[in-house]
Amino acid sequence: IVQRDGRALKELLSEIHFADIADLLEELNSEEATYVIKLLESDITSDTLMELDEDVREKILDRLSPKEIAQELVEMDSDDAADVIAELDEEVQEQVIEEIQDEELAADLVELSQYDDKSAGGLMARELVKVKETWTIAGCVREMRRQAKNVTRVHSIYVTDKEGHLTGRLSLKDLLTAPDKAHISDIFIPKVDYVTVETDGEDVAKLMQKYDLEAIPVVDEEGMLVGRITIDDMVDFIKEEAERDYQLAAGISEDVEADDSVLLLTRARLPWLVLGLIGGLAAVFIMQDFEAALDRYAILFFYTPLIAAMAGNVGVQSSAIIVQGLANDVVKGSLFSRFVKELSLSLINGISLALLVVAFNQIIGQPVNVSLAIGVSLIAVIIMASIIGTFVPILLDKRGVDPAIATGPFITTSNDIFGILIYFYISKLILHF
Amino acid sequence: IVQRDGRALKELLSEIHFADIADLLEELNSEEATYVIKLLESDITSDTLMELDEDVREKILDRLSPKEIAQELVEMDSDDAADVIAELDEEVQEQVIEEIQDEELAADLVELSQYDDKSAGGLMARELVKVKETWTIAGCVREMRRQAKNVTRVHSIYVTDKEGHLTGRLSLKDLLTAPDKAHISDIFIPKVDYVTVETDGEDVAKLMQKYDLEAIPVVDEEGMLVGRITIDDMVDFIKEEAERDYQLAAGISEDVEADDSVLLLTRARLPWLVLGLIGGLAAVFIMQDFEAALDRYAILFFYTPLIAAMAGNVGVQSSAIIVQGLANDVVKGSLFSRFVKELSLSLINGISLALLVVAFNQIIGQPVNVSLAIGVSLIAVIIMASIIGTFVPILLDKRGVDPAIATGPFITTSNDIFGILIYFYISKLILHF
Repeated sequence: IVQRDGRALKELLSEIHFADIADLLEELNSEEATYVIKLLESDITSDTLMELDEDVREKILDRLSPKEIAQELVEMDSDDAADVIAELDEEVQEQVIEEIQDEELAADLVELSQYDDKSAGGLMARELVKVKETWTIAGCVREMRRQAKNVTRVHSIYVTDKEGHLTGRLSLKDLLTAPDKAHISDIFIPKVDYVTVETDGEDVAKLMQKYDLEAIPVVDEEGMLVGRITIDDMVDFIKEEAERDYQLAAGISEDVEADDSVLLLTRARLPWLVLGLIGGLAAVFIMQDFEAALDRYAILFFYTPLIAAMAGNVGVQSSAIIVQGLANDVVKGSLFSRFVKELSLSLINGISLALLVVAFNQIIGQPVNVSLAIGVSLIAVIIMASIIGTFVPILLDKRGVDPAIATGPFITTSNDIFGILIYFYISKLILHF
Repeated sequence: IVQRDGRALKELLSEIHFADIADLLEELNSEEATYVIKLLESDITSDTLMELDEDVREKILDRLSPKEIAQELVEMDSDDAADVIAELDEEVQEQVIEEIQDEELAADLVELSQYDDKSAGGLMARELVKVKETWTIAGCVREMRRQAKNVTRVHSIYVTDKEGHLTGRLSLKDLLTAPDKAHISDIFIPKVDYVTVETDGEDVAKLMQKYDLEAIPVVDEEGMLVGRITIDDMVDFIKEEAERDYQLAAGISEDVEADDSVLLLTRARLPWLVLGLIGGLAAVFIMQDFEAALDRYAILFFYTPLIAAMAGNVGVQSSAIIVQGLANDVVKGSLFSRFVKELSLSLINGISLALLVVAFNQIIGQPVNVSLAIGVSLIAVIIMASIIGTFVPILLDKRGVDPAIATGPFITTSNDIFGILIYFYISKLILHF
């Protein structure tokens, strides 16, 4: 690369899969990477570009002219091309779309870029194989050959009526085994799952997983077939959603990766730490309030990290279970029965842990009433933490807010504060200070 | 159902998708569910059985005879059938396999059940469409029609040599457009990604995602084509892996759902809470050691929940990022450069948070040297926590241990203990108590 031996490099790279070229480009600086992209054929580079990390791709696109970008877009699937366009500055977007010769494609891209990223419209691709009910098998095969040129992989063949409304699907197997003179209307399957352009990505994912679909057709408000979503696009979506829930639980607010810059990582992490800090400072306030007990019951203060940790851990456990349950639609039954369940669960956990603490206290020679105070408050704190951990996500979900934001720092911090408050009030009641 | 009106019920259910029937069955008791299963055609029930939760399925299978189970298995894809067999008692397993008339299938199932659940061998299905290099296009289409009967969905067509060694794949598009008299060897693509039966499921998932594959062929040690894995099977696998990492981070050790029994949930949660308890008790010990400072610097003890929370939060953040990075193979560069990065990241976070704490301390009227002690230790604790959070998962990964177990309670607990230790030692140095 350093010597710019174009021909040798081109030969070398032509043997390599585009996903590996993408890995390679990420190691280079953007000038070198752009040089390589310009060197290669655009059917390889368009695939390579899609494999790149968003920020690397952005840098390379900055160095390409609108015309060069347009050439790449033409080679992409329409859903990928729309994603790339959405990443560009608005001014560049217009220039690029003007450079696209294929007017149908340009119109498709403008349309696709209007949908929300996370809706079925934003996830779908325009390319699909569609046949009309009235066609004969022979005509259909001919037409399919033509359409298949634009579609990288044939998943399903969708059937529409004359006007283009989705009416069913065609099994490849049936097509292969049907007599040439039959009509599509004789052999097509009139039942087909579909989503509309407005459907939320998460619902698309659930539907495709539940019914084990590899592709699902997308219709507009009038029932016209406008695109399809394939399972491989959903794999990325499903994985990103699961990872985002995990990151939120760990207190990371933006989608960051281990290799992102220090600044980006700080921006994703610091706000949550500040939240935790506020919780800690609240605990300082609470303890100052109970300072009078310090002389006689210093041991109570030594237990505060344990109480806070237990409140936090129980809260995170409860919320993680309920957030995953909500995401997978397995949370059934009434709120009351769930309440009873969480109560019995936290009683079992609470009493077991309290017994351990009391035993430990006896060993280090603390008075019985102190052990009692700590044990009883521990049980109360665990009950409080698991109720908050369970019901805050449920309430958020009912109000249409993503429950995942409630896990991690929010739950931990509020449980820390409530936990220490409950702990000192119960101890005060039992020990009369 | 209560009235056992078989015919009406059958008619009713025949209109419903098997995934919805499965949902319905999960609401019934096992006697009723078994009644419904026996009532329906076995091509529907086998699909329905696969959609059921493992424990519901187990209860229903307990009520079926080996012969009835065998009838269901025959209708399933071989990978699903092998999973079901693995769930049965050993004695029943043998009886069921004896009842399977199709000897080839029985042999396949015995073979499949020998592979590890999480290896490519355990994930693959035997059903696939394979053609030999020497065939003509016309012969191939004929043969494919025959094979396609056993395969629910044709993903890819694999090409083998005469002996059955995998040599390439065939594009459906090329097949549709090639002249009838051509040979497969003229049009097949000799490059194909594959995995061996031993390949780890996670590696299969990475490969399929990286190269956007919908199906991947599996070969045995000699390179013979023995099965294929489809992306829809991997979706479940990828999702389960991501969810498991999340659960581990939240301190849940078994794969549980919100609707599992209280006992099961306790078993998954209590051990991690005990671990947290031990950390809390260690903190009690440490503070007892520094009890002498209580008279002059009681405020130090009020800050212990804050220090512990910060150590825990930073540790969980760092480990979550690195665990996801390792899972997605994006952790590159030397250990030293990562060390420098974590160090600068935690310095920025640490100094920002320390400044906030010092400001707060001034407001509540604490002496400057106490603020200094708390601020400096906070920075030190954050650095320690992010180094432990980053490098424990990396070291575990290098030793071949799943780094996800290091996130959550392990990191939180050890960071709590180390954090409070560092805090009191640094405070002692600065305040000379």
